[in-house]
Amino acid sequence: MVELTRLTLDEVHHLALRALQANGVSEDHATAIADTVTAAERDDCKSHGLFRIPGYILSVRSGKVTPDAVPEVRELAPAVVQVDGKNGFAPLALRVGRAPLAEKARQQGIAALAVTNAYHFAALWPEVEALGEMGLVGFACVSTMSYVAPAGGVKPLYGTNPMAFAWPRADRPPLVFDQASSASARGEIMLHERDGHAIPEGWGIDAQGQPTTDPAAALAGAQLPFGGYKGAAIALMIELLAGALIGDVFSFEATEIDTQDGGPSIGGEWMIAIDPARCIGSGDRQAQLAYAETLFAKILQQDGARLPSDRRYAARLRTPTEGITIPQTLYDELHALGNG
Amino acid sequence: MVELTRLTLDEVHHLALRALQANGVSEDHATAIADTVTAAERDDCKSHGLFRIPGYILSVRSGKVTPDAVPEVRELAPAVVQVDGKNGFAPLALRVGRAPLAEKARQQGIAALAVTNAYHFAALWPEVEALGEMGLVGFACVSTMSYVAPAGGVKPLYGTNPMAFAWPRADRPPLVFDQASSASARGEIMLHERDGHAIPEGWGIDAQGQPTTDPAAALAGAQLPFGGYKGAAIALMIELLAGALIGDVFSFEATEIDTQDGGPSIGGEWMIAIDPARCIGSGDRQAQLAYAETLFAKILQQDGARLPSDRRYAARLRTPTEGITIPQTLYDELHALGNG
Repeated sequence: MVELTRLTLDEVHHLALRALQANGVSEDHATAIADTVTAAERDDCKSHGLFRIPGYILSVRSGKVTPDAVPEVRELAPAVVQVDGKNGFAPLALRVGRAPLAEKARQQGIAALAVTNAYHFAALWPEVEALGEMGLVGFACVSTMSYVAPAGGVKPLYGTNPMAFAWPRADRPPLVFDQASSASARGEIMLHERDGHAIPEGWGIDAQGQPTTDPAAALAGAQLPFGGYKGAAIALMIELLAGALIGDVFSFEATEIDTQDGGPSIGGEWMIAIDPARCIGSGDRQAQLAYAETLFAKILQQDGARLPSDRRYAARLRTPTEGITIPQTLYDELHALGNG
Repeated sequence: MVELTRLTLDEVHHLALRALQANGVSEDHATAIADTVTAAERDDCKSHGLFRIPGYILSVRSGKVTPDAVPEVRELAPAVVQVDGKNGFAPLALRVGRAPLAEKARQQGIAALAVTNAYHFAALWPEVEALGEMGLVGFACVSTMSYVAPAGGVKPLYGTNPMAFAWPRADRPPLVFDQASSASARGEIMLHERDGHAIPEGWGIDAQGQPTTDPAAALAGAQLPFGGYKGAAIALMIELLAGALIGDVFSFEATEIDTQDGGPSIGGEWMIAIDPARCIGSGDRQAQLAYAETLFAKILQQDGARLPSDRRYAARLRTPTEGITIPQTLYDELHALGNG
């Protein structure tokens, strides 16, 4: 049995902030990272929570990431803004790009944000949710490192390449989904390996390209896209959008240049924001959002059906009062990191 | 054995055009439909070829579609153009919107096209391919009628909701994919039923929500999304983009109002065009496209791997000289339709 310790969300934030700052991460970066890690713990998304902090720090210690990089904003076109992460972490670059992206979406109806030269280690949903909270439709995608075989192939090439989408709702949090284009998260396979469990069929193939339920064999071979060739097509689209479109690396290149220090890899992120009221003739935002609710009601009429973000939002109601738990060993590690 | 007849692509176009015009479809609409049907036959996409012409005509005969509608173009925002199909067929509405969409993409970097109030019966790939041929990145999606169960649910709600994507390539046709968010096309299940074959597991559930390999039971029950809840999330996103975002119907409403005349249902289509050169600081389009080719080369290095559009483009090399074949019965039907 893993010994757990309980923390308030404020304690989560403080623990993350202190560990990062004690290891040379600038206040702006440390705050942006602590915010995203705290949001993950608040929503019970453990795989993007405090568990990630040691990785961030390893990538600073190895010299790979510039821990005090100042992201640079540049307008590339009336509806396209670029943020050059300057070899720093992505959360601050994304934060810096959010207001110009939203402003352009309101002005032009649709706009895009290209984040380049940044290290990604967080979930995508906080970024699109932030756009949804501003009344905008949000889309984001990012490539990672080579883990997933292309359609018909058997060797790793694409990243697990997640995409996220947000739709704004009146008087409640946006509808959001955030999903990898691989059949499973890489971390899920690692957890099966650690616990000595077989993985489900369809998650991976071994180094010879044969289907396997052995997690170690799948990690040494390749992950499979979700839904066969259709998921592979989405992974390919994301390689192009977060890579060639914005002048950043593909997953296979991120893998080649990564120092394997246990931290995030470098790459690009592509986001789109749309002002829904600019996409209908009437401009009646209230009626438009009410109309979308008729679809959500139809979904929820079905026994067992649910909206994509419901589990996260349920956790969000609990954790501000109940707090969250992490393994005592992780707490001790983060506490020690906070002492430099 | 089905008796086949061979036609040149010119004959395909003429046969379609004549049948449509003899049944009251205006020259502009008939030409746009004949072009898209001929492109499908040329690329060996039979399910969107001449086979569709009787359906177009049925929907005119029933009085559902306005066969001489004049689509109306309107700028909703600097980067958003709307085409109101005026209760007519989609191919002409899309054609009318293409130039303003491309112009806006070049001006603003990214732009969107909302096609509303139109009847969709064609594949999406010709539209995004046309953008790719203009050097733009293209995305399109459309909702259909209620066939697919939502995540966790067992009753039809979403359409088969395809999405298509195009990436421009120098000196060759764009990379394109076009895929339903259902595990299979509805037509595939119908073909299995006709031929007395079981369908693969994962395509559908029966009216009680149980997995089935009986095509008739799946048609009476619900289709499943590709890749489980992740495909369902994509189907949901498409309902929102091609529905509430642009003020058009959801699939469940299209089903409620459709006259079941065997023709297309009404709905919206959402497209995005991006000028890739406006998304990089250098603006060096040539280097950008060359860079994307390094990814395509990596894919093709793997035995068995292929690019999404390869099969269609291979057919396209053959059919201008070899022609195409259709069942003699379909030829006779179209020929008779052409005589009014």
